[in-house]
Amino acid sequence: MQEFVIGVDIGGTNTVVGLVGPRGELQTSTIDTMPRTDPSLFVSRLCKEIATLQANVPAGNTIKGIGIASPAANSQRGTIEDPANFSWGTIDIVSMIREYFDTPIAITNDGNAAALGEMEYGVAKGMRNFIVITLGTGVGSGIVVDRRLLLGQNGWAGELGHVIIEEGGRECGCGRAGCLETYISAPGICRTTIELLANKSAVSGLRDIGHKDLTAQVVCEFAKNGDGIAIEAFGIAGEILGRWLANATAIFDPEAFILFGGVVNAGEILLKPVRSSFETHLMSFYRGRVQLMASQLQKGQAGVLGASVLISRPEYFTSHEPSEFGSTLSSTG
Amino acid sequence: MQEFVIGVDIGGTNTVVGLVGPRGELQTSTIDTMPRTDPSLFVSRLCKEIATLQANVPAGNTIKGIGIASPAANSQRGTIEDPANFSWGTIDIVSMIREYFDTPIAITNDGNAAALGEMEYGVAKGMRNFIVITLGTGVGSGIVVDRRLLLGQNGWAGELGHVIIEEGGRECGCGRAGCLETYISAPGICRTTIELLANKSAVSGLRDIGHKDLTAQVVCEFAKNGDGIAIEAFGIAGEILGRWLANATAIFDPEAFILFGGVVNAGEILLKPVRSSFETHLMSFYRGRVQLMASQLQKGQAGVLGASVLISRPEYFTSHEPSEFGSTLSSTG
Repeated sequence: MQEFVIGVDIGGTNTVVGLVGPRGELQTSTIDTMPRTDPSLFVSRLCKEIATLQANVPAGNTIKGIGIASPAANSQRGTIEDPANFSWGTIDIVSMIREYFDTPIAITNDGNAAALGEMEYGVAKGMRNFIVITLGTGVGSGIVVDRRLLLGQNGWAGELGHVIIEEGGRECGCGRAGCLETYISAPGICRTTIELLANKSAVSGLRDIGHKDLTAQVVCEFAKNGDGIAIEAFGIAGEILGRWLANATAIFDPEAFILFGGVVNAGEILLKPVRSSFETHLMSFYRGRVQLMASQLQKGQAGVLGASVLISRPEYFTSHEPSEFGSTLSSTG
Repeated sequence: MQEFVIGVDIGGTNTVVGLVGPRGELQTSTIDTMPRTDPSLFVSRLCKEIATLQANVPAGNTIKGIGIASPAANSQRGTIEDPANFSWGTIDIVSMIREYFDTPIAITNDGNAAALGEMEYGVAKGMRNFIVITLGTGVGSGIVVDRRLLLGQNGWAGELGHVIIEEGGRECGCGRAGCLETYISAPGICRTTIELLANKSAVSGLRDIGHKDLTAQVVCEFAKNGDGIAIEAFGIAGEILGRWLANATAIFDPEAFILFGGVVNAGEILLKPVRSSFETHLMSFYRGRVQLMASQLQKGQAGVLGASVLISRPEYFTSHEPSEFGSTLSSTG
């Protein structure tokens, strides 16, 4: 008998559902999240999809449980709590799924799921101390200390994107100003581009693009074609991120940082200035000792793989004294 | 039979040696560190003092080991590595003491010892996740995650004082610029005072004091007597520290911060602006949930108590898989 796990990766547009085999073999399917419609309809469609995948489990084997990665996940309560761009409010998703499946169910946020995925299936295999930085519409992280996720007192730890790096800086969606996220997320890179276009006189094809059509991907294309403003925008993001990774090194003494998410598709346009700034800002005794890597997991697979690790490797996730943390893994059993 | 532990707190001027009983009862004595003389003479004097205290252990009881708190301690190697203001270079202090005492010996830095002391004997008793910030000549920290010290891959974690908060900011002893320490340590508060005296025209008794005689304690006295420049200097330090504690909250989700060390003697002159800035800069869902406390341990006792916890509570200090971390606790046994 072998154990299979269901991984679910809830995104603002799509939700990927995966059946993960004992050696990480993966079958996935995708449904529309429809974050503006009734969440109970979402759960019903999701569970139908899970049931379809479950039917593919070879006879005699079992499903060990369902792991979920979601924005605004509260792993202790088993809830999704009013994520940006969703009109679900707070939903008790673990209980809702449990009405369909009598199995252990656990949930965590995207950053933590990414870290679990890297530790079990990605470039962090075998590492004890590392930090995954997720760079997309927002900036998050999953911090692993001694092969366990850093969760904190309420399960809220790891919000590296909401460290204030500039007093009175850019307005942030969190209600404050100057958060790291406002400088190095995809929209942050666009804000820097617009600032540069305002400050500089250089010729740039970016001047022909309306702000509504300006995305980090567009800026990246221009940078790859040699546009000076675009290259500088990524250079500034890289400088800020590199400095921040040096700060995180002083705090955590990690083996590696793993960059994950859409913005990392820019490749060397981003990574070169990150690396240079990182080594410049490190305390001398760390130089050359801390790895800076890009995730190698496939887009569309990383999330479900990471979510499944919540179930297949609960020891990465639970506290050292599980009795005090029993609500993390919810089960009807 | 009851177990006693020896705690040693090495400072730049004095070294406190303590005999700690099973309920934290403490007998201490103090020797001059003499950090500019031969370190083997220091070890010889230290061990003589330990032997004297050891003679006070009631018959039939044992010494469980010797715990040491020191600047620039490397807990994995058992060394003190070229601390600022010492001319010892790197010394293998654990091996040196072991030539006198056949007992487990462990060493850690001041910040970590302070955290261990608070967890076992101080205001952090019973807490799972908290951070001690040491504010003195330098700024350090001891970070406790799930009742274990955060050590990192090389035992170097927790250098909160060397997070860069201002690119191109004040020159720091670490060779870089803009580190938190250069703004909120005792010398940092003096630097701010001098800057204010240069920038402002206000009458201030501080203008009569030479820079050599200007200490954070002097600035504090003036602040307590209503000097505007002095009050503003502490206000700026408090604002910066409060913002940083809010950042550390986003990263760690702790129950509490505990401020420890000489600068904290300023009391409300410092704590009021820290508290105000902290609550202002916190993400909204943390407001009112994270405690900000001053250490209540007695000066001269905190260090030895914390150092002794290395031996009495090795579970706070060792990794989750002690076999891979065997060098932390060195023993001849």
